[in-house]
Amino acid sequence: MSKTIDVCLSPDLLHLHSIEDKLVVVVDILRATSCMTAGIANGVESITPKASLEECRELKAKGYTIAGERNGEKVEDFDLGNSPFGYMDDELKGKKIAVTTTNGTVAINKSRNAKEVIIGSFLNLSAVAEYCKKSQYNLLVLCAGWKGKVNMEDSLFAGALVEALADTHESACDPPLMTAKMYEAAKDDLLGFVEKSSHVNRLKRIGIGKDIEFCLTIDKYSEIPVLKGEKLIKL
Amino acid sequence: MSKTIDVCLSPDLLHLHSIEDKLVVVVDILRATSCMTAGIANGVESITPKASLEECRELKAKGYTIAGERNGEKVEDFDLGNSPFGYMDDELKGKKIAVTTTNGTVAINKSRNAKEVIIGSFLNLSAVAEYCKKSQYNLLVLCAGWKGKVNMEDSLFAGALVEALADTHESACDPPLMTAKMYEAAKDDLLGFVEKSSHVNRLKRIGIGKDIEFCLTIDKYSEIPVLKGEKLIKL
Repeated sequence: MSKTIDVCLSPDLLHLHSIEDKLVVVVDILRATSCMTAGIANGVESITPKASLEECRELKAKGYTIAGERNGEKVEDFDLGNSPFGYMDDELKGKKIAVTTTNGTVAINKSRNAKEVIIGSFLNLSAVAEYCKKSQYNLLVLCAGWKGKVNMEDSLFAGALVEALADTHESACDPPLMTAKMYEAAKDDLLGFVEKSSHVNRLKRIGIGKDIEFCLTIDKYSEIPVLKGEKLIKL
Repeated sequence: MSKTIDVCLSPDLLHLHSIEDKLVVVVDILRATSCMTAGIANGVESITPKASLEECRELKAKGYTIAGERNGEKVEDFDLGNSPFGYMDDELKGKKIAVTTTNGTVAINKSRNAKEVIIGSFLNLSAVAEYCKKSQYNLLVLCAGWKGKVNMEDSLFAGALVEALADTHESACDPPLMTAKMYEAAKDDLLGFVEKSSHVNRLKRIGIGKDIEFCLTIDKYSEIPVLKGEKLIKL
């Protein structure tokens, strides 16, 4: 095996990793990177991740559809919240979206110095794995977490990717081994396992249980969003 | 359940936690907190964790035995390295030790604002669990990790403690659930599981395989080191 896979469990630990020479897969299963995958797969032209609500509002004046979430809830004056179903509207085909979320867009913006940044989710797991196998670069999975804290669903995705790349990528450190072991123990009942997590309980309180089930669906899509300049577009 | 347990997987994530009102269990299985447990159990009077080699050397002049490790290896002019067997010498009974290590002493020093700081290891797992059950405070397990990175053996200890406290402590966030799941999957062959980890391979390269097996021994001791002022003493 000539390539390595590492897992960064929180954006607050990214300073411990060199990313300049790596392919980075950013993951925020609930729900930013699941939304991005669904949107690009459904024909959205581009998705621009922004740090602030205000930057999104400025792009709205330039014709963008704007999507925003804070603490899991849609921002009132925005066109879309953070539900993958919102990204599947036929009217969004060919449109540009600007988006800001609590965790996912932060993680993407922190990854900009990487050799290449792609978006991972359970929805496009196998496609991401195949792309990583073909890439010449060592791999870092960056889990978006929840406000810096490590979370279960992003860690499980990391473990799933480690498992899928077992024949081509060597674990660079302990988190790949840890997340793979966790995924192995959880994969037969991913929904049941994730339902115990703190973020799922947070999301259920705001009434979006069906989003969770969708975001845990494996390989619904084969498209991969990739960061080109400021925008995520279809790879 | 009236109390909570949280797990901080790296000292570099401690800023996300409030510790002022908590009992903090610091863990650095390989090998700082295993050494501290063994030392206090074997009659060492006190162990003073220090950030730098120089601070230890100053205490040597005041009659302390000094123990030091950098990158896993003993510091040349120090009395002891970071092997638990070194802490069991009969000549150390009643003596004061000053110690600096790559990760463990850093984690202890970052915990000083907690309501109470105790030292955990597999060697005193059940004693620590019993103490946590009796404590009135919510609990944070702080994993020392490796230079900020999350590691397997400290995470497994955290999971073991979560499991031991399942009847009294509710998980505050995802890492307790994650580490408990990992421990559940690993506990029947803890050594075999940990042997895959990066730090164990690092330690084996410097020839201390027997330390590892010892540090994974559960409940060899019932003593708990507790931080009082600058020093760890027997609780």
